[in-house]
Amino acid sequence: MTQIHIGIVGGGYMGKAHSVAMAAVGAVFNTGLRPVLEMICATTDESSERYRAAYGFNRCTSNWRELVEDPKVEAIVIASPQSTHRAISEAAFALGKPVFCEKPLGATLEDSKTMVAAAEASGVVNMTGFNYIRTPASQYARQLIADGVIGDVTWFRGEHTEDFFADPQSPATWRCEGMSNGTMGDLAPHMINAALALIGPINSLVAEVETVHKERPGGKVTNDDHAQMMCRFANGAMGSMYFSRVATGRKMGYAYEISGTKGAIRFDQEDQNALWLYKMEGPEAERGFRKILTGPAHPDYQPFCLGPGHGTGYQDQIIIEAKDFLQAVESGENVWPTFRDGMLVNQIVAAALDSSNAKQWVNIEPLS
Amino acid sequence: MTQIHIGIVGGGYMGKAHSVAMAAVGAVFNTGLRPVLEMICATTDESSERYRAAYGFNRCTSNWRELVEDPKVEAIVIASPQSTHRAISEAAFALGKPVFCEKPLGATLEDSKTMVAAAEASGVVNMTGFNYIRTPASQYARQLIADGVIGDVTWFRGEHTEDFFADPQSPATWRCEGMSNGTMGDLAPHMINAALALIGPINSLVAEVETVHKERPGGKVTNDDHAQMMCRFANGAMGSMYFSRVATGRKMGYAYEISGTKGAIRFDQEDQNALWLYKMEGPEAERGFRKILTGPAHPDYQPFCLGPGHGTGYQDQIIIEAKDFLQAVESGENVWPTFRDGMLVNQIVAAALDSSNAKQWVNIEPLS
Amino acid sequence: MTQIHIGIVGGGYMGKAHSVAMAAVGAVFNTGLRPVLEMICATTDESSERYRAAYGFNRCTSNWRELVEDPKVEAIVIASPQSTHRAISEAAFALGKPVFCEKPLGATLEDSKTMVAAAEASGVVNMTGFNYIRTPASQYARQLIADGVIGDVTWFRGEHTEDFFADPQSPATWRCEGMSNGTMGDLAPHMINAALALIGPINSLVAEVETVHKERPGGKVTNDDHAQMMCRFANGAMGSMYFSRVATGRKMGYAYEISGTKGAIRFDQEDQNALWLYKMEGPEAERGFRKILTGPAHPDYQPFCLGPGHGTGYQDQIIIEAKDFLQAVESGENVWPTFRDGMLVNQIVAAALDSSNAKQWVNIEPLS
Amino acid sequence: MTQIHIGIVGGGYMGKAHSVAMAAVGAVFNTGLRPVLEMICATTDESSERYRAAYGFNRCTSNWRELVEDPKVEAIVIASPQSTHRAISEAAFALGKPVFCEKPLGATLEDSKTMVAAAEASGVVNMTGFNYIRTPASQYARQLIADGVIGDVTWFRGEHTEDFFADPQSPATWRCEGMSNGTMGDLAPHMINAALALIGPINSLVAEVETVHKERPGGKVTNDDHAQMMCRFANGAMGSMYFSRVATGRKMGYAYEISGTKGAIRFDQEDQNALWLYKMEGPEAERGFRKILTGPAHPDYQPFCLGPGHGTGYQDQIIIEAKDFLQAVESGENVWPTFRDGMLVNQIVAAALDSSNAKQWVNIEPLS
Repeated sequence: MTQIHIGIVGGGYMGKAHSVAMAAVGAVFNTGLRPVLEMICATTDESSERYRAAYGFNRCTSNWRELVEDPKVEAIVIASPQSTHRAISEAAFALGKPVFCEKPLGATLEDSKTMVAAAEASGVVNMTGFNYIRTPASQYARQLIADGVIGDVTWFRGEHTEDFFADPQSPATWRCEGMSNGTMGDLAPHMINAALALIGPINSLVAEVETVHKERPGGKVTNDDHAQMMCRFANGAMGSMYFSRVATGRKMGYAYEISGTKGAIRFDQEDQNALWLYKMEGPEAERGFRKILTGPAHPDYQPFCLGPGHGTGYQDQIIIEAKDFLQAVESGENVWPTFRDGMLVNQIVAAALDSSNAKQWVNIEPLS
Repeated sequence: MTQIHIGIVGGGYMGKAHSVAMAAVGAVFNTGLRPVLEMICATTDESSERYRAAYGFNRCTSNWRELVEDPKVEAIVIASPQSTHRAISEAAFALGKPVFCEKPLGATLEDSKTMVAAAEASGVVNMTGFNYIRTPASQYARQLIADGVIGDVTWFRGEHTEDFFADPQSPATWRCEGMSNGTMGDLAPHMINAALALIGPINSLVAEVETVHKERPGGKVTNDDHAQMMCRFANGAMGSMYFSRVATGRKMGYAYEISGTKGAIRFDQEDQNALWLYKMEGPEAERGFRKILTGPAHPDYQPFCLGPGHGTGYQDQIIIEAKDFLQAVESGENVWPTFRDGMLVNQIVAAALDSSNAKQWVNIEPLS
Repeated sequence: MTQIHIGIVGGGYMGKAHSVAMAAVGAVFNTGLRPVLEMICATTDESSERYRAAYGFNRCTSNWRELVEDPKVEAIVIASPQSTHRAISEAAFALGKPVFCEKPLGATLEDSKTMVAAAEASGVVNMTGFNYIRTPASQYARQLIADGVIGDVTWFRGEHTEDFFADPQSPATWRCEGMSNGTMGDLAPHMINAALALIGPINSLVAEVETVHKERPGGKVTNDDHAQMMCRFANGAMGSMYFSRVATGRKMGYAYEISGTKGAIRFDQEDQNALWLYKMEGPEAERGFRKILTGPAHPDYQPFCLGPGHGTGYQDQIIIEAKDFLQAVESGENVWPTFRDGMLVNQIVAAALDSSNAKQWVNIEPLS
Repeated sequence: MTQIHIGIVGGGYMGKAHSVAMAAVGAVFNTGLRPVLEMICATTDESSERYRAAYGFNRCTSNWRELVEDPKVEAIVIASPQSTHRAISEAAFALGKPVFCEKPLGATLEDSKTMVAAAEASGVVNMTGFNYIRTPASQYARQLIADGVIGDVTWFRGEHTEDFFADPQSPATWRCEGMSNGTMGDLAPHMINAALALIGPINSLVAEVETVHKERPGGKVTNDDHAQMMCRFANGAMGSMYFSRVATGRKMGYAYEISGTKGAIRFDQEDQNALWLYKMEGPEAERGFRKILTGPAHPDYQPFCLGPGHGTGYQDQIIIEAKDFLQAVESGENVWPTFRDGMLVNQIVAAALDSSNAKQWVNIEPLS
């Protein structure tokens, strides 16, 4: 076991989640590289010191360049606002340091393209943080589809729905401005990433993006509350996606349903330890969707929990990400999803916004 | 209690369902009009006699005009193929006889317009058979929305999905030809009717219609296997619908989810005695979707079953339709859904096919 | 098809349910014997006439002997209070007329023994009305167990729970007096019958019977509100049952869970069209309880509904009973459950009451 | 923030779980005391060193006395076999060191009584590790009952069922011998603890304990595979519990259903982020069990996860335990469940075994 000194930029929710993950991952997965919480960076000296103490880092700074350039810091986790992702990752790649960057990758598609180019030019490990796809259940879904268990996919329906702005009387916040803080910028990337991971590339789409409540106590809302798209995948499957922050009653509605020529899959993150599988085989009378509870037989579950049904939670997804990132760094081989995968999500988001403005179908060209 | 002599055109599945309903409805709902199973009509003399005996009718014929014109027959139920709906109903209306016609109303939008004109000119009772919306659960959903319990509706997602053609090796049948036998003609009308009934008129839509398996053992498939649409309702709500006969694992996927500014509703016909309701009120910690089991407190349940949770099934929907039709005939007042409602469904189906062909959004004009 | 003239004693809930069933069963199941609703008997001339008209009988009487002895009446359905079951069935058997008698069979175990003796001496068809076990789902459960699909049964848990007396402020009614109106007399027989049907004879048991709310507005409660038992089946399985009319939130909690050495089964009447099956076979990762929706592949479903997932309701159970009774009468061969099966349920109920009084385990001796 | 040096005895499953928890708890809950992983003890020098490196401890030993007596070790976590609990905790209390001891507390009721006496004599903090009751959902259930939300409890049904020995062909292991390794020793304590925590003391019980598969490949089975009890609580509620390691299909069947005079609660650990609540209030038509997803509004959830529905997993329960233990040590005030609570569970287990042997009801006397 070798130590690796980690620097994390950002001390808020995701900064905390990644700090906890780096503290726990070694014991949980018995990783070859053992993280040392070396340095954390937040916006002020005061907040940086507060996070340092709370999360157990050795040192802190309010200047992300200092963190990136610090000779002891060997790998960077970016958990700061989206607008900062490009500059920080470029600086890290320039020094040949591996980067784990939270989703959505770039503030614009152009930013993402630049980041991918920098990552690939440097040749170091790069990874984008789409945590939800990393549950044992969703990883198993991906494996089942890849193995042909449900045959050729004919239909995909995905949603990422929550209700944190469902009440029209909820006051306006910073989330009410800026495309990247709206539903398409904030929630859609998770499910678009899932669609690309589970089904494959998207060829064309038509989308609608809408602000439902244009005024809230304390201010105007200038970005989208919900959005939907119809799409066609490269493999011919038809798809539908919906994203909403006004989906009353939905708390973590990251959910999908997939039909294939031999079976079907259903998943809802609100019960994240269950995957529903239907197989068109055996006696008709015995067929039905089976509720599979994740356990040691499923990806990334075994070293974590005692037995089937013990259950993983939100933090566990982040620990699995940390494990994968550490293994990539150790081996020098990238692990999915790379920056390129993050960029592909940016592309679909941009196309959906275009489609909504133009009120027409748009084609998705493969990125070089 | 007064007798009413019923003639049913069609002896297959729906003919049987309506025959059973007419035999049972009097006792179940203690109706003022009591049906007498007077005459049934099927395609041959032999099949007509077989159905007559099996279902308990007094007489039979293989000529629907004979049935319609028979002086003892006072009301007509049309359960024959869609292409025959127009002629039969026109003949009945010309004689001033009330008509219950199975969905979808007309073989074309033009047929339906003509049928509506005939119905309204005659002034007699006319009704279209959208049975699924008549469960106590879906009637209660309609009432909750109308009463404002979930506030202003912002989102509607509906599907009617089954898997009877999911297996690519299922042989071709008569269902594989003719637009009215495809998914848009056969399954979509039920859910479009639900959308119109629950949310209101649709202003515009964009749709996709597709044949997934173009060849089957025994022949080609020339109509659609599945279809989807995005739409916008007149009240501003955003909507999405999906229809499929290749939805592996789905047996009766007539399902909808509705978000509003004060609550949300979910329903799936595969558990047709439950309606899920979320209300954004009370302590945050106590909020959740509640699973309401239909019982005497819900529409059209009470006279039927002993208590809450006893449960209604498919046949019960048809009995409720029979009750409503008899009450309309007795009072002379039409009961929803009339022929006009059936025509509005035809209109949306036609618009969806247009949109799919043109690959663009289409507007829905109000019908006079 | 031959006609059979039916006489029904009792015009209340179950009288209505059986009347509707007899009117519908011929068309639904295309039975060889076709019921004619010949005569109904209620407590007064006035109520008898009201029921006659409402349910569509030819004649009525307020004297059950007149009904039983009427030369046109060929088969008897007893849906009157439990205290009358013995006398009516004895009179019918004396005349060689087949009897369908509602559960619980006799007011006492002694009554039931006498009724069984009369039935068996007469040699005519006799049947007890345990309707819930007749859903396609529960019949399929029985078949799966008999076929060894879940291996040797090791555990059975059953309940019949409702909440019609959950509110302590619900006023006292006739149900609050008399052992046969309490939970053990009214609800327990259904689930005890299920246990005997699914698992087999019970060898010993220990039970507790309790009145939770001893006073209600308007009077005292002198029979039981809920009861539980632990038992041991003849095949070695361990069992547990619970019965309650104060189970807040439970509307039709007729539910069971069964573990075997190769699989498991779960059922809840509140979702009566689903049976949950777990099979300990195939890859560990793919195992899970599957939710089987009843359809044409399951017992007694096919002739009834259009396809899988269309769904059966409460009334459908009664129609299935009517079909089975008619077939038994036609063939002269008894169909399960006979009066003897009804008596075995009485025996377990009596033993449970004994056990509760004595606060100790009791053994169940096989009845000759 | 002050450091506290932790010694953990036992390096297996629970040793790992507590090690991970101690590494993560500071950042997760921002605790005042920050654990230092000082020393771990396993059975051999080699395994101790392996665990030390894997979990990140400073030092290790194969002699638990050395760990307990080490001057740097300030608090002890006992995660070694049950037979060692008494000696280790007595040694720790003698030195005035706080102890967290895994369930079940003592190998016998006598052991537990001695341990409680030692704990109370020393005056230091002591806690028993019943992790499942610490989910936000189960803590919230406890709070709802305590607050009277479901009124007076009338019925409790609990189970702890798994299927790790469901297959008769699973080979014999060390779990097949010794009462403390059977179902009553291993699984029952969790649910008995829940029953005591949610409902209160038990006054009397009757139980059955059984070995289903007496031979397995590789050896005999001499302890119990499953067990059940009926019980009566001090507050008058009736109760039933079932414990099994042969419950085919059940992975983490820690589940309970509670009926009260105003509402009801249901929980199943297989979906550990949901609590089902029924309230007997509001319009009858709107009543139903609501599925509450745990979130920041529920106990011990807020500092952990980002929002409602993000979800907790198995490891999170252990982290909550660690937080509670650290807070107890910091404040000097014991936190439920103490050693005394662990002893009460031992008492019920012992009484159930007595009852099963004697085949009769037994009374539970309050322990001084």
